Amino acid sequence: MIPKQQVLGFLKDYDPESITVATVCSHSSLQIFDGARKEGFKTLGICTGKPPKFYDAFPRAKPDEYLVLESYGDLMERAGELRKRNTIIVPHSSLIAHLGKENYLEIPVPVFGNRVAIEWESDRAKECKWLLGAGTQMPRKIDNPHDIKGPVMVEYEGAQGGKGFFVAKNYEEFNELVDHTRKFTIQEFITGTRYYLHYFYSPIRNEGYTLSRGSLELLSMDRRVESNADEIFRLGSPRELIESGINPTYVITGNMPLVARESLLSRIFSLGEKVVEESLNLFGGVTGAFCIEAVVMDSLEIKVFELSTRIVAGTNLYISGSPYSDLVQKQLSMGRRIAFEIKEASRTNQLDKILSRSSMRYYYKK
Amino acid sequence: MIPKQQVLGFLKDYDPESITVATVCSHSSLQIFDGARKEGFKTLGICTGKPPKFYDAFPRAKPDEYLVLESYGDLMERAGELRKRNTIIVPHSSLIAHLGKENYLEIPVPVFGNRVAIEWESDRAKECKWLLGAGTQMPRKIDNPHDIKGPVMVEYEGAQGGKGFFVAKNYEEFNELVDHTRKFTIQEFITGTRYYLHYFYSPIRNEGYTLSRGSLELLSMDRRVESNADEIFRLGSPRELIESGINPTYVITGNMPLVARESLLSRIFSLGEKVVEESLNLFGGVTGAFCIEAVVMDSLEIKVFELSTRIVAGTNLYISGSPYSDLVQKQLSMGRRIAFEIKEASRTNQLDKILSRSSMRYYYKK
Amino acid sequence: MIPKQQVLGFLKDYDPESITVATVCSHSSLQIFDGARKEGFKTLGICTGKPPKFYDAFPRAKPDEYLVLESYGDLMERAGELRKRNTIIVPHSSLIAHLGKENYLEIPVPVFGNRVAIEWESDRAKECKWLLGAGTQMPRKIDNPHDIKGPVMVEYEGAQGGKGFFVAKNYEEFNELVDHTRKFTIQEFITGTRYYLHYFYSPIRNEGYTLSRGSLELLSMDRRVESNADEIFRLGSPRELIESGINPTYVITGNMPLVARESLLSRIFSLGEKVVEESLNLFGGVTGAFCIEAVVMDSLEIKVFELSTRIVAGTNLYISGSPYSDLVQKQLSMGRRIAFEIKEASRTNQLDKILSRSSMRYYYKK
Repeated sequence: MIPKQQVLGFLKDYDPESITVATVCSHSSLQIFDGARKEGFKTLGICTGKPPKFYDAFPRAKPDEYLVLESYGDLMERAGELRKRNTIIVPHSSLIAHLGKENYLEIPVPVFGNRVAIEWESDRAKECKWLLGAGTQMPRKIDNPHDIKGPVMVEYEGAQGGKGFFVAKNYEEFNELVDHTRKFTIQEFITGTRYYLHYFYSPIRNEGYTLSRGSLELLSMDRRVESNADEIFRLGSPRELIESGINPTYVITGNMPLVARESLLSRIFSLGEKVVEESLNLFGGVTGAFCIEAVVMDSLEIKVFELSTRIVAGTNLYISGSPYSDLVQKQLSMGRRIAFEIKEASRTNQLDKILSRSSMRYYYKK
Repeated sequence: MIPKQQVLGFLKDYDPESITVATVCSHSSLQIFDGARKEGFKTLGICTGKPPKFYDAFPRAKPDEYLVLESYGDLMERAGELRKRNTIIVPHSSLIAHLGKENYLEIPVPVFGNRVAIEWESDRAKECKWLLGAGTQMPRKIDNPHDIKGPVMVEYEGAQGGKGFFVAKNYEEFNELVDHTRKFTIQEFITGTRYYLHYFYSPIRNEGYTLSRGSLELLSMDRRVESNADEIFRLGSPRELIESGINPTYVITGNMPLVARESLLSRIFSLGEKVVEESLNLFGGVTGAFCIEAVVMDSLEIKVFELSTRIVAGTNLYISGSPYSDLVQKQLSMGRRIAFEIKEASRTNQLDKILSRSSMRYYYKK
Repeated sequence: MIPKQQVLGFLKDYDPESITVATVCSHSSLQIFDGARKEGFKTLGICTGKPPKFYDAFPRAKPDEYLVLESYGDLMERAGELRKRNTIIVPHSSLIAHLGKENYLEIPVPVFGNRVAIEWESDRAKECKWLLGAGTQMPRKIDNPHDIKGPVMVEYEGAQGGKGFFVAKNYEEFNELVDHTRKFTIQEFITGTRYYLHYFYSPIRNEGYTLSRGSLELLSMDRRVESNADEIFRLGSPRELIESGINPTYVITGNMPLVARESLLSRIFSLGEKVVEESLNLFGGVTGAFCIEAVVMDSLEIKVFELSTRIVAGTNLYISGSPYSDLVQKQLSMGRRIAFEIKEASRTNQLDKILSRSSMRYYYKK
């Protein structure tokens, strides 16, 4: 990974009055540009081929300029241009996917957040270490099918983007449905309802490993719309479907808004807090936007099945505010919150805390 | 119940320029505090142990002060303090649950709304009398299982908070699934989609949608998110699940927004109107926020299965307004509407109409 | 259909400073009136019997005046009155249903949009010609049951408003479930999740048959709430239900908000664009609000199953803006967008482009 000192070196040449916020034109770019503009930044849309035509239909979110590439890999060579524009990249998962993890970790441009978090998120063993270290409850892994005691979610090796899974209500059904010629992993199926919790952690408001009041915010939550699982009940039960050769799949196609019982908020904040604190211990800390993907059970326990260490697309629902962010500040999207953090950090000379923030401490710790 | 005259007596010593809105820190307190502040009131959060840390993350909703108790029962002794602060309590169901119904009816502090409504809501026989008297259609109770002609919802004695229910599609299935060693009640299962309708009845307003003694508003609606029933179709049909020993449950974990067909609005208002009118006849009237919990069938008939006589948590979705309240006033949450009602009643010297409003008439009637 | 010249003739006598926006009091009238008022128009609510009382509860949306009819058919005779008020009718599907298609095509009053579009929408063969001409993918029609290879949706002749359908997972199930004494049509059942996409096409921003940038907007999207299909999974799988004599039905009772993955937006815009361009070729073009009703599959392909050529009720969710329209202009509902288009067209002397816009070209083409 690019050394922190190098990133801080770039910043010395930056004009703090003329920072450009850049991201790849996808995923959550509309709100990132909209938020950046509202906080007074210039905006730059990175794309390949040609600028997406549909941006013209959203004048408030259209970036001031585009950086048009032949392929996203070219971005590495264009880093100098980006730095000349005093650019801070706001990453999202499409940007990382297009750029590749290696390039993302190395690109010689300041990036909002802690880049190293991607390594803790994308490696399942590290993610578990982090989440379990934070004291969260996760769906149990089941190594031996004979240990199946209740419903399970089975994932075939190579499953990707929501396909290659099946559920079974018990061992018998697992046994009937599983394709024994393929490799698979088994995980407890948690019965409950899904909540994707959108947090924002501000290192410049925090003063230690135990989070200060107000340094962790909850800006919104959503439920992902998954195709075809979300509506396939209209055709049959999972069992009936599989027997007809039809497979429920979990590909994300969008998001729906929701709120949680207010009495769950203490638990939701405490969950977020522990996840941040453990990340501070492990790798210098998740920074800015992150998302905990959870199931709320009928016991009101919260089980965590996944984590994202940057802005998630579910926040696209809340471009003009959410039932939670409205209590922080009017019309506060996650994109705008990120821009505001950059502005505040710049104003108070703390950009080092939010850009590649933790890599040094991380390397020292190792 | 505390006599109305006594409550009115308290008000004589109140400084109308310095009223405090208080509630227990849970359920819908964020919007109650946010709304009260927007209408110019001081706010007081009642809690046990210590103030919830997460309020710091919502600066616009954080109450000005806290009243920290060892246990909620202590609130009775602290009534004097509350009155010294010119406090009006805005109740929600967590407040009543924590305080206990008896204390709620007796606490010597002005409470927004008609306290006696709780007796008509929490007693199923009274609730039916009210709803049927209002001409609403309710799911039929079935005393003898042999009378089961279609789908039913069965509730075991002692069922609580969404657990202890099962559905059956017909008599045969009922018979197979029921645990005959337990006591149960049977109710028709209405096929349709759920709508939770958030009304506000103002006894002091005589313009707008007028009733015989006030006016009615519809501020929003929601669908409750119930765990695990809302997503358990991903695992199997109810039948398949029960055969695997997995029970669908109906514990509320949150809320999703929705709107109804505009052509249903006439019916929805007429429903609310009749419910208010009947409550005026029976016990002096539901006052302020109330919610009708309904199923809209494919015939577009509305069946009512429950009633709440105060602010419901589904309104938490609409802290900055809803597709309905936006047509009443910009950024009008239910919490703010309540605060506005207190302000208007105070300004026009009609607090007697919205605080313990109807107890006297109720006692006269008995 | 009324000749375009006649409509343009009416406009010569109109006072552009005093236009009245009128519609029937149902469907999406609240936002049409609210939007029209925000853009400075007078508003007129058309109703039978007496004005709906519930409008009084929505002061910001209540029309300035009502035109109270004995029956909607009387509107034809009252056309003169409407013109005297400089009225432009904004149609919605209830208005067309109440008035009747013939009257709608003939009524001698300016109507927003291209009236002839109704003929292309309501005739299934024409609709297919349009959609397939636009290169959209639609569910396949299956003429011979023996060609059923996967899940199907079967519609009995005379099915109306969401009733008279059933689904089958394969040929065997179709065969078991179908009532052979009735006539039916069979269509491929697309597994995925439903999105109703709310577009606005502005002819006054466009300059040709290939859409100019910015002339097509996407203002919002929703998912329809269908009774009883949306919640009947709580009772059983479709198969189990039908075997118990319970029929899933698809009657629209309301709408829920959602957003789509940002990476789908290019495809969504391209879809809308092709649909508009083909309509320009076929009949002079859909004008203003239209809706594409689609299923997004787990392959992220979009299949189109229906089209509406005017404002749809799903936009009622977004009376104060949506996550998409907020990026066009603050607090922009579809109702307001329509009013703004009328204002702009009037200001720039282009009303001919948005009122019965295309009938002439259409007749020339035939």
